[in-house]
Amino acid sequence: MERIKVIEIKKSVFENNDRDADNLRQELKGRGVYLLNLMSSPGAGKTTTLIRTINLLKDKIRIAVMEADIDSDVDAVKIKEATGIQSIQLHTGGMCHLDAEMTRQGLDNLELDGTDLVILENVGNLVCPAEFDTGAVRNAMILSVPEGDDKPLKYPLMFSVCDLVIINKIDVQPYFDFDIDKCRSYIKMRNPAAEVIPICAKTGEGVERLAEWLLNAVKTWKTN
Amino acid sequence: MERIKVIEIKKSVFENNDRDADNLRQELKGRGVYLLNLMSSPGAGKTTTLIRTINLLKDKIRIAVMEADIDSDVDAVKIKEATGIQSIQLHTGGMCHLDAEMTRQGLDNLELDGTDLVILENVGNLVCPAEFDTGAVRNAMILSVPEGDDKPLKYPLMFSVCDLVIINKIDVQPYFDFDIDKCRSYIKMRNPAAEVIPICAKTGEGVERLAEWLLNAVKTWKTN
Repeated sequence: MERIKVIEIKKSVFENNDRDADNLRQELKGRGVYLLNLMSSPGAGKTTTLIRTINLLKDKIRIAVMEADIDSDVDAVKIKEATGIQSIQLHTGGMCHLDAEMTRQGLDNLELDGTDLVILENVGNLVCPAEFDTGAVRNAMILSVPEGDDKPLKYPLMFSVCDLVIINKIDVQPYFDFDIDKCRSYIKMRNPAAEVIPICAKTGEGVERLAEWLLNAVKTWKTN
Repeated sequence: MERIKVIEIKKSVFENNDRDADNLRQELKGRGVYLLNLMSSPGAGKTTTLIRTINLLKDKIRIAVMEADIDSDVDAVKIKEATGIQSIQLHTGGMCHLDAEMTRQGLDNLELDGTDLVILENVGNLVCPAEFDTGAVRNAMILSVPEGDDKPLKYPLMFSVCDLVIINKIDVQPYFDFDIDKCRSYIKMRNPAAEVIPICAKTGEGVERLAEWLLNAVKTWKTN
């Protein structure tokens, strides 16, 4: 098993997270590092989606991953083993989200020189992470088919703050009452500008479009 | 569509939630009302499981349900329509959990005289609700197969505080990498005394055992 750096994240001391997040965003802009904040419920498929996407992109841009979890380091190990890229584990020690200062604690443990894209896999939680700006350029989320098409109705803030909604596990749609058109319309209610990309991380279906979206986002941001 | 009472829950002013929860538990004991706190990730199947279970029990004991959600009242309406029992919706207004005081705000809006069992469907979240004692006699949770068998490793507190772990959506096990024996052993790591009941709320498989467990829990508590 690969040896993975595990960072025990401390509670933030900054009072103004929004200002701190803006500062972090600015600093990362100066260094040419695009930060993506990826959120979802527990078990929606964040790690599997990342592995597929990273393997399509890693020869085009340099990527690093920070895996946040309350406990365990299985995800950082999985990413490292399946993609070979720089991957660290952040332990939140019971905390249900990451803010900008906590994100910075992770970034301080990455080799950022030459890195184009850092993906932060946030704590599996559809509620709290949506309330805290991490300093990321963009927020993305995964909704998986077994969770149900009504989630944008029940977790409005999460869907409002995300620029990209990935609908995962579309291969099992026949076994669940999940109406993708209804789901799209609920997402639009919360965020008319959100991009929606259906995928199956397990088989790879749709992941190419996701990789393209991400590559394009990073390139556009770098040249602006 | 049924008209459902929707309660906008206010933030608690009590500083000592543990003491407040003990007080609430005591009060409910005096009134003969058993409170069950049901938790899970978003979309694990709490409402469907409740409907199945309540329909097996409603002629034996008197049950009421409080459906907590950040927004929407779809769940309380569903429960009411499918079971006919007393059902109210609690809006947490963005708050990610319920504590004892917030639970009390809900209970104040129920007709408790003659009610044997109140089930609180907590906010869909595997992190924060585990940190707050609601005043319930027992905590139960649902883990659904699509979320993965490793969840007890990643969300240790939730599994530690639950007396009952319901494993839902076992009908789709063939389509997911979910090892139920491995999952049982992870659950035991967190809580050796936890009862584990596999079910499929959609088809009803296993729900009889769940209903029996609950009926037995309420009866034993009433006579002690």
